[in-house]
Amino acid sequence: MIKKIAILGSTGSIGTQTLEIVRYNKDIEVTALAAGGNVQKLEEQIREFKPKLACLWSEEKARELKTAVADLDVKVVWGMEGLTEAAASTEADTVVTAVVGMIGIRPTIAAMEAGKDIALANKETLVTAGHIIMPLAEKKGVKILPVDSEHSAIFQSLQGSAGNRIRKILLTASGGPFRGWTREQMADVRPEDALKHPNWAMGRKITIDSSTMVNKGLEVMEAHWLFDVDMDQVQVVIQPSSVIHSMVEYEDGAVLAQLGTPDMKLPIQYALYYPRRRFLPGPRLDFTTLTQIAFETPDMENFPGLKLAYEAGRRGGSLPTVFNAANERAVALFLNRKIDYLSIVSLIRGAMEGHRVIENPSVEQILEAEKETYDYIDGRQFSTPPRA
Amino acid sequence: MIKKIAILGSTGSIGTQTLEIVRYNKDIEVTALAAGGNVQKLEEQIREFKPKLACLWSEEKARELKTAVADLDVKVVWGMEGLTEAAASTEADTVVTAVVGMIGIRPTIAAMEAGKDIALANKETLVTAGHIIMPLAEKKGVKILPVDSEHSAIFQSLQGSAGNRIRKILLTASGGPFRGWTREQMADVRPEDALKHPNWAMGRKITIDSSTMVNKGLEVMEAHWLFDVDMDQVQVVIQPSSVIHSMVEYEDGAVLAQLGTPDMKLPIQYALYYPRRRFLPGPRLDFTTLTQIAFETPDMENFPGLKLAYEAGRRGGSLPTVFNAANERAVALFLNRKIDYLSIVSLIRGAMEGHRVIENPSVEQILEAEKETYDYIDGRQFSTPPRA
Repeated sequence: MIKKIAILGSTGSIGTQTLEIVRYNKDIEVTALAAGGNVQKLEEQIREFKPKLACLWSEEKARELKTAVADLDVKVVWGMEGLTEAAASTEADTVVTAVVGMIGIRPTIAAMEAGKDIALANKETLVTAGHIIMPLAEKKGVKILPVDSEHSAIFQSLQGSAGNRIRKILLTASGGPFRGWTREQMADVRPEDALKHPNWAMGRKITIDSSTMVNKGLEVMEAHWLFDVDMDQVQVVIQPSSVIHSMVEYEDGAVLAQLGTPDMKLPIQYALYYPRRRFLPGPRLDFTTLTQIAFETPDMENFPGLKLAYEAGRRGGSLPTVFNAANERAVALFLNRKIDYLSIVSLIRGAMEGHRVIENPSVEQILEAEKETYDYIDGRQFSTPPRA
Repeated sequence: MIKKIAILGSTGSIGTQTLEIVRYNKDIEVTALAAGGNVQKLEEQIREFKPKLACLWSEEKARELKTAVADLDVKVVWGMEGLTEAAASTEADTVVTAVVGMIGIRPTIAAMEAGKDIALANKETLVTAGHIIMPLAEKKGVKILPVDSEHSAIFQSLQGSAGNRIRKILLTASGGPFRGWTREQMADVRPEDALKHPNWAMGRKITIDSSTMVNKGLEVMEAHWLFDVDMDQVQVVIQPSSVIHSMVEYEDGAVLAQLGTPDMKLPIQYALYYPRRRFLPGPRLDFTTLTQIAFETPDMENFPGLKLAYEAGRRGGSLPTVFNAANERAVALFLNRKIDYLSIVSLIRGAMEGHRVIENPSVEQILEAEKETYDYIDGRQFSTPPRA
């Protein structure tokens, strides 16, 4: 049987790795590709993978693409409407949601409404709208297949759970490039420092988020929704070499774990062919050369972003949206050298403190809270001059 | 629903730990208890757990027990006939086979013929008669639930396998008390040295087997039968602290593992209530204090017992029986200070070299090969004076 997929965010890190998997599997077909603004790369992908539908965010870029691929049988669309069409209206049975940010919420919902399984790499959707997404998945009978390596590890570890209750999720973290640093040491971190992740090759935004451990905080919230556990049942364990990708502890004390080399293609492929596994080229864990797996406890003092994530997740409502939106905006400002490194988390804290939480927010209320948070950050940046 | 179990080997390490589990679970009942020769302990167990049937190996001890429990409603039996009755003729739905040695083969087969699931701690049964046991389990539709911590870990890790092919089993080993020693250093090892296992509290024979790594060799053969993999798909990994209890690698490179504290009650309870897990008192793995998990490769030069096990398992037929029987006899001689430590493995090698392999042996042929091996060792011991 031919597997059909649509990829939202096809020119990013997860998107291109998904297409690598498509490249060496003969029984998979791409129905739609959606990207942000990289016309040239999307054109190359269209020529290679021949989707029926392609989407770019801006109308201008979309028109540019349309001219470039005029010789091919592909419909070019744009904007949120186009993204939603790419998610929901092709013959795909699985939609890979690899866009960054809350932009993923509406297309994800549209795909689910259309009965498609979701290979979820867009964690913001669950962080901000988990209370809408998870019941909808149940109602529609569609699967939410995690693509994040940690959540895939948990998902894999839970395959034999047979309904047994989870006592604890042990979410591993590399600790990022500044593990062991104090806040004083981090004061002068530049974008190029924070973009060096010790183990994983990822997009720019998530690499910064890993360095602040905000990404781990978002993952705790994601795990809370995906696996139906309380925030405080998710314990972050620092495992610097990223050999253990995460673990689950059961009531009897047994801990199930998934280990592997740091290769995102594994969780992507697992999500695409779930529950089947198939050969994946690449290095394997080698226990004749691996001498140890080390563990540390997370340092919430020097990485307060993680602590704030627990606070946001415990409180719930619209607060995780504020946490996420503030971080998104602050990271962009940091990458553009408008604010210093430590201000990323200060801005998140400020935004959270100033927010009046809305319980059980609708998609509209989530997007309003996002906008409100953006406005708050945008209004503040000029009063917070960068240090360096 | 009340779970009913029979325990063969109830006064040993696995047997008493099984009864500990029975003690704090209200929905489990013991139908039969069989022990070797410990009349007093078995009497205590009968008074506490009230089985309908009790068995001791010798008629004399059985008569002694019969007198002691004359006030109770319990039938006392003895010998192989009695052990088979205990295994097969009570209302037990699961039989815990925790006897040591090939004595377990016939009762295990009888239990399976009677449609009972097997909680298997008697690895000799699979090592010597795996080619009979595994097809019989399939034919009778009964489960073989591993109780060895490593095999339970593999079994747990395979629960979500969904039919996916195993590439490799990573069987962990503590390495025993002489890990890192040379053969020269081991020459003067006394029974009391070899009986000190670093992590696990176990019976005497298996503790010696752990020190020589013969136990790990038997476990490789057991894994080969239980999980239908070639001997060479089973890789022994030294993990000195016994935190990782074993692992499975799939075709895509994903490694699934079960971790935990070294407590045999976990695999026993998992086998009894499979696939349900329930709370088990005791310490948990604590990733706030655990700093590392170390790995080493097994030293086949200084632990040739492991190498011989691979040879026996690869060759198959009656050779694993010879490996096991020679070891059983040699360990008894060592514990009785009749031979030195290194002679255990030399005797195994000698017995294997002198044996003409029978393909696909019947139970009778297995027991004949055992006897032949015992005779070989008994004939040799006087010509090999102990060193110390």
